[in-house]
Amino acid sequence: MSNLILLDHESKEPLYLQLYRHFRTEIEQNRLKEGHKIPSIRLLANSLSVSKITVEKAYQQLLSEGYIINGNRTRYAVNKFVESAWPAPAPRVTMPAKSVADAPLKYDLASGEMDRDGFDFALWKRYVNKAFGDHNRLMRYGELQGEAELRRQIVAYVRSRGVNCHAEQVIVGPGVQSLFNILAGMLKSEHNSIAFEEPGFKMGRQIWEDRGFCIIPVRLKREGIDTGELAESEARLVYVTPSHQFPTGYIMPIGERLRLLNWAKQTGATIVEDDYDSEFRYFGRPLPALKGLDTEGSVVYVGSFSKAMPPSIRISYMVLPDRLLDLYQNRAALYTQATSTIEQLALARYMADGHLERQIRRLRKLYNEKHAHFLDCIRTILGQRVDINETESGLHLVLTVKSPATPKELYSSALAKGCRIALLQDYYLGEAPVAPSQVILYFSKIPAADMPDAISLLKEAWF
Amino acid sequence: MSNLILLDHESKEPLYLQLYRHFRTEIEQNRLKEGHKIPSIRLLANSLSVSKITVEKAYQQLLSEGYIINGNRTRYAVNKFVESAWPAPAPRVTMPAKSVADAPLKYDLASGEMDRDGFDFALWKRYVNKAFGDHNRLMRYGELQGEAELRRQIVAYVRSRGVNCHAEQVIVGPGVQSLFNILAGMLKSEHNSIAFEEPGFKMGRQIWEDRGFCIIPVRLKREGIDTGELAESEARLVYVTPSHQFPTGYIMPIGERLRLLNWAKQTGATIVEDDYDSEFRYFGRPLPALKGLDTEGSVVYVGSFSKAMPPSIRISYMVLPDRLLDLYQNRAALYTQATSTIEQLALARYMADGHLERQIRRLRKLYNEKHAHFLDCIRTILGQRVDINETESGLHLVLTVKSPATPKELYSSALAKGCRIALLQDYYLGEAPVAPSQVILYFSKIPAADMPDAISLLKEAWF
Repeated sequence: MSNLILLDHESKEPLYLQLYRHFRTEIEQNRLKEGHKIPSIRLLANSLSVSKITVEKAYQQLLSEGYIINGNRTRYAVNKFVESAWPAPAPRVTMPAKSVADAPLKYDLASGEMDRDGFDFALWKRYVNKAFGDHNRLMRYGELQGEAELRRQIVAYVRSRGVNCHAEQVIVGPGVQSLFNILAGMLKSEHNSIAFEEPGFKMGRQIWEDRGFCIIPVRLKREGIDTGELAESEARLVYVTPSHQFPTGYIMPIGERLRLLNWAKQTGATIVEDDYDSEFRYFGRPLPALKGLDTEGSVVYVGSFSKAMPPSIRISYMVLPDRLLDLYQNRAALYTQATSTIEQLALARYMADGHLERQIRRLRKLYNEKHAHFLDCIRTILGQRVDINETESGLHLVLTVKSPATPKELYSSALAKGCRIALLQDYYLGEAPVAPSQVILYFSKIPAADMPDAISLLKEAWF
Repeated sequence: MSNLILLDHESKEPLYLQLYRHFRTEIEQNRLKEGHKIPSIRLLANSLSVSKITVEKAYQQLLSEGYIINGNRTRYAVNKFVESAWPAPAPRVTMPAKSVADAPLKYDLASGEMDRDGFDFALWKRYVNKAFGDHNRLMRYGELQGEAELRRQIVAYVRSRGVNCHAEQVIVGPGVQSLFNILAGMLKSEHNSIAFEEPGFKMGRQIWEDRGFCIIPVRLKREGIDTGELAESEARLVYVTPSHQFPTGYIMPIGERLRLLNWAKQTGATIVEDDYDSEFRYFGRPLPALKGLDTEGSVVYVGSFSKAMPPSIRISYMVLPDRLLDLYQNRAALYTQATSTIEQLALARYMADGHLERQIRRLRKLYNEKHAHFLDCIRTILGQRVDINETESGLHLVLTVKSPATPKELYSSALAKGCRIALLQDYYLGEAPVAPSQVILYFSKIPAADMPDAISLLKEAWF
């Protein structure tokens, strides 16, 4: 039998909700059974001394949620449903116990994040605030390819890397992974495998794996990816970092670049060039991009602002060759632009006013000094115990540690001293060489004054 | 034979770059051939009356780029490379001709973007500016799952939808597509197909297709997805929009919800619930989420701020059941967080101060009025020529147009009058029913005062 209806006229909860809850509970607890006719609106309103509207709203809510059905025009009846399926009351949610705290991290040498003095936030904030002026734009979904102003600025920016393109070729995305997702979707119909430098950029590789591409690891030589091995593979799509191979730091010389382009020309292959940190070269001028030599439209050029700007601002871009534009356009409408519009608009103006150029100059100077100082510290403190893979560019170094310890042991002992490092072996898709132990050290976010301490801790940890 | 070296001491271009360019051109044009020894640094510096450092910098650059090699300690020689591969000079880049301009768009009824008066940008700007205070955070890559403050606010927010969870279950991403990408990656090892409402959210479906899932379209009934047909299919993973089916607007009644949960419990299936616009219900209270009834951890709950906030702010989220957290954690480190950190931090404080709640109340009131007015206009102007699929919620209506015209013809004739509409048939994966012609009209961004004009234009176009 159904319970009495008790309404609390003093309650903050509207009467119609109280009424709704009453019936809902009665039905859930099976006191009102399938087909049972509930009182007419008029009758219930009268007997409870509430307005008909109150009862009507309660019934409408029950109806919307499917607790009752509209039997005929005036009478509602309890709906039919799988009784046994009524779930038990949900258990109280408790927070999972925290895992045991790691040792306090003193120096993070595993991250290419920016020097804490490397960016003028007050200036950037002004540009974000200026961008708030464009309300109309901010009310909408962003342009699929990225905001037009930003794409035009990117066209001008990549010219300094020797890349000539027009704004229609530029696609903006919140990080390189999102761009690879788009690219993989476009290229999946033509390719089922992609060659990757071995070792290489594993977080990029991951996206292609996710998209069902077979990854063909191609060995690195001192001159970058082994073009001979590449040509022998079945791959007609390859990912390379010619300006500063990630993670080894090697630079691909012009002869090898031509060989790679020639292979693409002859086989109709596509090259994905990731120019991730080319701004940071400390000797001479930045190397021109491979894309600058590409007259056949073989190269997709990928770049990011995550090294020149703080990486919490998620803006990357790619330049598609004209021959891939149709393929992109056919699919573009299937995806929404995921990059914050206001940050795109702010960056476009920041670039137009010359601030990105200044920011890069400033950071290059800062990192040049830190790079030199970091090398000094390593040479002075670690001396002959390590070999340095010197490349005069980028934000990290690769050290060969002359120790019988395995890479994992080096990692753990460094962490025990409060230093997080990265291991070269983690960037291999296949089996990494067991010896020698090679570690990756980023210096970008380590304050220069702390470098002697950081390296001394590594010495204590390893020797 | 090599050309003379001509240096311009008046030029802005540094001498070392002039020298570098000279040699580069000589090599590229094959006037200096493979193995040819170039002058020693001392000799060239003397004969050109420039410093040795100038020559050294030029040679270093040529060396870095692979034009020359270090033959022995003092003499450099021209490197070897595929001569024939020297690309011809790149053609000048020209902008592609603009396609013929579309007729001017007067009313966009195909987009659920926000009313232009629907958001207080001045207030939001203050929150973005407050978030700039946290420099340390902004210098870094964002937290993989999303910033902790925002995830805590989301936990509190979804409680109003009947969803109980803890912050570790919440994953933030820049749009629902990005979350589906993560989810698809997690579930690929367990599932190779996913059932989708037919018709349904095609931009969500696309991501699962991209990830190699076989899409099983399951017919919609008046009560939402046909659970009988679902149970007969091989799918153990299903995407549903129970609170307001997209695009038809149907609401899944409680009985069907229980049936769906029961199916999931008995088969170990996973349900992806997309609660995309549940805030906007104009009668009674918002329907509780399916997830609120889920005691077995069968439901992944997906939500977005793109209806309550301007969609240029790209923030969506999903709540994973505990049983999927390990699967997520195993893969999380492979992806970077793609959502702007500053917008996450701003939103967290905006929510904490109660502004999101106020914003939704305000928008609900505004849209309630617009919804009623829009219905009035349609009834008054189009009358019996259309049937309205009334659901008292959401930002769009589905109209059945009683006209012999095909949907495509309705679309074209509306566009010719300056009105963009959407077609229900475009949301089908399989064959859409040919008749009747059903169109989707969003009212959210159409000013109330313009609605009579917009509907009159549709009348002119169609009847």
